[in-house]
Amino acid sequence: MTDLIPSWVSYANDPQCDFPLNNLPCGAFVQADSTSRCCTAIGDQVLDLHALEERGIITFGGTLRTGAWNAFMALGQSEWLRLRHQLMSMLREGADTGDQLSPHLVPLENVRMTMPFEVAEYTDFYAGRHHATNVGTMFRGAENALPSNWLHIPIGYNGRASSVVVSGTPVHRPMGQLKGPQDEVPHFGPAQRFDMELEMGAVVGQASSGRLSVDQAFKNIFGYVLLNDWSARDIQGWEYQPLGPFQSKASATSISPWIITTSALEPFRVPAPEREVPLLPYLRESGPMLYDIALEVGLTPQDGRETVITRTNYREMYYSSAQQLAHHTSSGCPMRIGDLLGSGTISGAGKNERGSLLELSWGGNEPIAIEGGARAFLQDGDTLVLRGHAQGRGFRIGFGACVGQVLPVQQD
Amino acid sequence: MTDLIPSWVSYANDPQCDFPLNNLPCGAFVQADSTSRCCTAIGDQVLDLHALEERGIITFGGTLRTGAWNAFMALGQSEWLRLRHQLMSMLREGADTGDQLSPHLVPLENVRMTMPFEVAEYTDFYAGRHHATNVGTMFRGAENALPSNWLHIPIGYNGRASSVVVSGTPVHRPMGQLKGPQDEVPHFGPAQRFDMELEMGAVVGQASSGRLSVDQAFKNIFGYVLLNDWSARDIQGWEYQPLGPFQSKASATSISPWIITTSALEPFRVPAPEREVPLLPYLRESGPMLYDIALEVGLTPQDGRETVITRTNYREMYYSSAQQLAHHTSSGCPMRIGDLLGSGTISGAGKNERGSLLELSWGGNEPIAIEGGARAFLQDGDTLVLRGHAQGRGFRIGFGACVGQVLPVQQD
Repeated sequence: MTDLIPSWVSYANDPQCDFPLNNLPCGAFVQADSTSRCCTAIGDQVLDLHALEERGIITFGGTLRTGAWNAFMALGQSEWLRLRHQLMSMLREGADTGDQLSPHLVPLENVRMTMPFEVAEYTDFYAGRHHATNVGTMFRGAENALPSNWLHIPIGYNGRASSVVVSGTPVHRPMGQLKGPQDEVPHFGPAQRFDMELEMGAVVGQASSGRLSVDQAFKNIFGYVLLNDWSARDIQGWEYQPLGPFQSKASATSISPWIITTSALEPFRVPAPEREVPLLPYLRESGPMLYDIALEVGLTPQDGRETVITRTNYREMYYSSAQQLAHHTSSGCPMRIGDLLGSGTISGAGKNERGSLLELSWGGNEPIAIEGGARAFLQDGDTLVLRGHAQGRGFRIGFGACVGQVLPVQQD
Repeated sequence: MTDLIPSWVSYANDPQCDFPLNNLPCGAFVQADSTSRCCTAIGDQVLDLHALEERGIITFGGTLRTGAWNAFMALGQSEWLRLRHQLMSMLREGADTGDQLSPHLVPLENVRMTMPFEVAEYTDFYAGRHHATNVGTMFRGAENALPSNWLHIPIGYNGRASSVVVSGTPVHRPMGQLKGPQDEVPHFGPAQRFDMELEMGAVVGQASSGRLSVDQAFKNIFGYVLLNDWSARDIQGWEYQPLGPFQSKASATSISPWIITTSALEPFRVPAPEREVPLLPYLRESGPMLYDIALEVGLTPQDGRETVITRTNYREMYYSSAQQLAHHTSSGCPMRIGDLLGSGTISGAGKNERGSLLELSWGGNEPIAIEGGARAFLQDGDTLVLRGHAQGRGFRIGFGACVGQVLPVQQD
């Protein structure tokens, strides 16, 4: 594990800071009514990369002046590394660049973060062993908990890219077709079992048009975000057979505003859990492709105080994003820059390590205690915060928060 | 039903011509190594609308010079109609525009058609009563053929937009994870049960960010294409539980090159079949929203002759695209210009009216006869052609062909 690389931006050297020099995440911000600008974060500051390229301080073919990271991603891995190295040398303690860069540092608290990239398409997976077992047990009983294909295939489905929003965007409780077990016919109304799912999102940084090996897939991933796959369980229960989730997952998917690059996460690679059955060769990894990322979710009721409702770790996944991407291309499916792959809900083995309220409250039957109340599913006014970081020696690679408040149903 | 509107382009007045003046479809073409140009078809000619806007003969804010129809669609319905009326008056028999337009007419046989629009996202539905019953009977038995939600919800799932290709693009047989009923473990190999699905695709022409009524949804649809949803049944059978089809449908989806506008189809509106159970109010139509469109599929083996393997009609659908789009937005799901909605497989009641080989050969057990052979599923070298038209008095609104040849598995 590498050590902290000290920066002349002093707060970057604080062990609790999400954005030390080791991180250098990729985001986009606006100030007042400006357009979106590519940036990185260092300490408690945003560094305006749009301005740096405008002034010729860095040169990446104008890609950092496009308001999103897609064009930069298209440049490929050697340019990804060149930017990282240039920023490192400019921001490193002792570098003589303070005068040059300081005009382009803006306090994080003074900016609004926007979508860091344009989502080409969005795919969501179902790759957490504990989550699949929990949900399977609730829906099909303990004997049939895990579908027979689950240990062989990183099960996934296509989601709705247009529904992906950046942290801070409020999320309306969806309407939908609902039919309870006692109802004779369905009705249309507000979802009553509105839920979150704690996930990581992998951002595809290179296009492809044929089958990718797991190793190649690993290299094509640009970085990761935190992802909250808002889910209406009652809409899902009635609609999902036989073709999978549709409107239950289409109202919104929130992501954190910073893409944390695979370079920043490199020291934190960990192997997947031991395989219960051998994987087919096209899914085998040549090395560790998961990451040790501590995750937690805080729930704050309207005018209330936060309760951390779950703590888990990304290393709990059975399949890595590289395996998911390789499987995604197994039919020849073309992938595009900006494709977003949700990991699937990340649940640990313990009761307090579950990544959804569905699991935490065991199908709504065992509401969990929160400050000043209890929750089976989300109530209007609840705010959810996803947080994640990889822990180094004396520093952390933080993801920043993925925040979303539940608003009442949107009126026509 | 309206009559033929005669044109000075003489072949447009032939009763068998796909592109009379009543049609005026929206396409894009290339010649030699030029870039893609927006065009319409009249008779056996392409009219280069890119050139017409370049010369100032028509003016639509430069949208017809973008190589695809998305920017034009964004202009909205009144501009859609203005273009149609301008083209009608310029191409009508007796119009004094031959000298002005003739330089921009190119024989259809001399051009290559390209994607008429950029597919934003692709959704596929499952809205044919006969298809759902046939497939359900094969997979779950006659008693459980129709899922309990089917008569209440236009069941759909998100597909993969990056896989949509224009007619004429060859399609490789996909590889995938396969596990036969007798196999103990899955293996990775070429799909053996590669199939087609005869569908219509609705092109969404206006963006939305909340719930749409069925009437509003009807207005937001710009037009229709023929759509072949290539499907690997053996990949599908092993992967699709519990989250739906994924890699089985991701290798390719072919569309015909012309968007046939809702204006051209207006005289051919027909009501949906009688409802077996009442629909919820948010899905009720105020008038007929299906179309009377005769459809057929021809299969031609390598070096062989064509057999028409099915004949059916779009009016067989239980749900219209307007209902599908309204349901798609029921959760608040944002829709974008260029979203493509597959109708679902269109099967009639008769044995020879089924829209997939899965149904035609009843799960592969009853291969159908074709010229010089038989087919359960597709073989390498087979070419499929989808055709469709609405029949007027002395004219037809044709869709042009949706062609695709099956090539062997793509090597690494």
